[in-house]
Amino acid sequence: MSLAVFGSVGLDDISTPSGEVKGVIGGSAVYFSLAASLFTDVRLAANVGGDFPESAWTTLRERGTDLTGLQLFADRQTFRWSGKYQGDMNEAQTLNTELNVLVEQPLVPESYRDSRYLFLANMSPDTQLEILEQFPRAVAFADTMNLWIDTSRENLERLMSLVYGLVLNDGEARMLTGEHNLLKAGAKLQQMGPDVIVIKKGEHGCFLFTPDGRFGLPAYPVENVVDPTGAGDSFAGGMMGALAEMENFSMDALRRAMAYGTVCASLTVEKFSTGGLEESTRHVVNERYNEFREFLRFS
Amino acid sequence: MSLAVFGSVGLDDISTPSGEVKGVIGGSAVYFSLAASLFTDVRLAANVGGDFPESAWTTLRERGTDLTGLQLFADRQTFRWSGKYQGDMNEAQTLNTELNVLVEQPLVPESYRDSRYLFLANMSPDTQLEILEQFPRAVAFADTMNLWIDTSRENLERLMSLVYGLVLNDGEARMLTGEHNLLKAGAKLQQMGPDVIVIKKGEHGCFLFTPDGRFGLPAYPVENVVDPTGAGDSFAGGMMGALAEMENFSMDALRRAMAYGTVCASLTVEKFSTGGLEESTRHVVNERYNEFREFLRFS
Repeated sequence: MSLAVFGSVGLDDISTPSGEVKGVIGGSAVYFSLAASLFTDVRLAANVGGDFPESAWTTLRERGTDLTGLQLFADRQTFRWSGKYQGDMNEAQTLNTELNVLVEQPLVPESYRDSRYLFLANMSPDTQLEILEQFPRAVAFADTMNLWIDTSRENLERLMSLVYGLVLNDGEARMLTGEHNLLKAGAKLQQMGPDVIVIKKGEHGCFLFTPDGRFGLPAYPVENVVDPTGAGDSFAGGMMGALAEMENFSMDALRRAMAYGTVCASLTVEKFSTGGLEESTRHVVNERYNEFREFLRFS
Repeated sequence: MSLAVFGSVGLDDISTPSGEVKGVIGGSAVYFSLAASLFTDVRLAANVGGDFPESAWTTLRERGTDLTGLQLFADRQTFRWSGKYQGDMNEAQTLNTELNVLVEQPLVPESYRDSRYLFLANMSPDTQLEILEQFPRAVAFADTMNLWIDTSRENLERLMSLVYGLVLNDGEARMLTGEHNLLKAGAKLQQMGPDVIVIKKGEHGCFLFTPDGRFGLPAYPVENVVDPTGAGDSFAGGMMGALAEMENFSMDALRRAMAYGTVCASLTVEKFSTGGLEESTRHVVNERYNEFREFLRFS
């Protein structure tokens, strides 16, 4: 079943204890789609500038991703981000952000509107609301960030009342609810509208809150974390891709989907940029999923 | 099968966001024994001053704990610790430590020497070595702390070459190995001698390293963390108690034991001092164990 994603395409400069790379492929919609396309048909929508390399789309095209929603601004620049990771690498220090073509509204292709599943990656809640209106029958999940919690709280709350699921990180969950304890924060977020709340805790795993109960996972244990950029979007892509593949949002399906999301995030952090997800196949994902299940097994 | 523990008895002053308590019961051997006694016969050895309340032993006596190794220094003071927790409460800020009777060597009762299992809670590695020599047939686990890594590294390494298992927290594992990544740190610690390495990550769970593979758990999700003091010792007590009850150190037994340890730690943090473990029964532990297994289940 088709899964549409709206988000960013970017060119990143990244510095981590493993090294530095400049102008590499990034953006929430790219990481999300590379993960989700291991499971299901993906429809990508994002704005891109003339400086973005055409070769970046090779893997996604091979995986059958629909790029109709890619809106090219040929004589303008792609979104650029530069960041640095230190210490436990759980959080990036943003050094610079140039929105460039991200300031333009995304294109919503007519052919995407029958998508059964929708993911609204981090962008302004008013843009997320405008897109959401055009997918009245989709099961929609949204991500957000601290900036919108500060500056667009009203629209964010309206969005939360309309989406099926919200995916956010631990810091954002605390900020949005004023609750330090993540179990309390999750319960408050559920009261704000979404049936399903997913809190990402980076290297410390994730929590799920649903009307049927709670679930938790640690992160997949990775020995060489090279570059955490895109881990959260890869998690969301693996999770949504697996849900779309299963065509099922039961508690058991959500549990499995979060474990698949965890696996996708672990593949991302092992290489700079999108290298980990580009090299991977569904077979690699399934093997790691089985290892992860064995790692956590107790009776 | 009998499990002997050597550690501290203390009187603690504790400040957390939930409140302040003064002169409450604490110490590694107390938390450990309260947890382990929910599973097996415990033999406690520790030094105590005349100021320690006799009533503190009621629960342990009821659970059949052998207190022969309690060495009373009637006109001296019990070990005192005061600490403060803020923010995510994962680490205490120590405000004051008075060793008092802890400077004396512990008593090793003749009647303890046939103990099949031995836990050496945090104390100087030379004292741990002296005790260990008197239990040549026991399966021994030891804990340690940053102080000894700094000041008694040689004795600590000798201890590590002699014990079956080492239990330590994430910061100590990093300090002892120079590896930030905990999977690498765990592998290095195994090379230093112990068959089994348990790394405690506080609210982020724990890792296990054995010759048969690795295992990981998140913490049990607790909504109201009142006082984290003793969580690590409660974890160790639950784990060792469950292992002693199972009389088995297989990978499967270790996995189960760590989940029981996690449950005991969660009971501890919900109340100040030893309140959580004192109120609990094996039935409470088993119910929470089953909830925890359900929380983590995926297929």
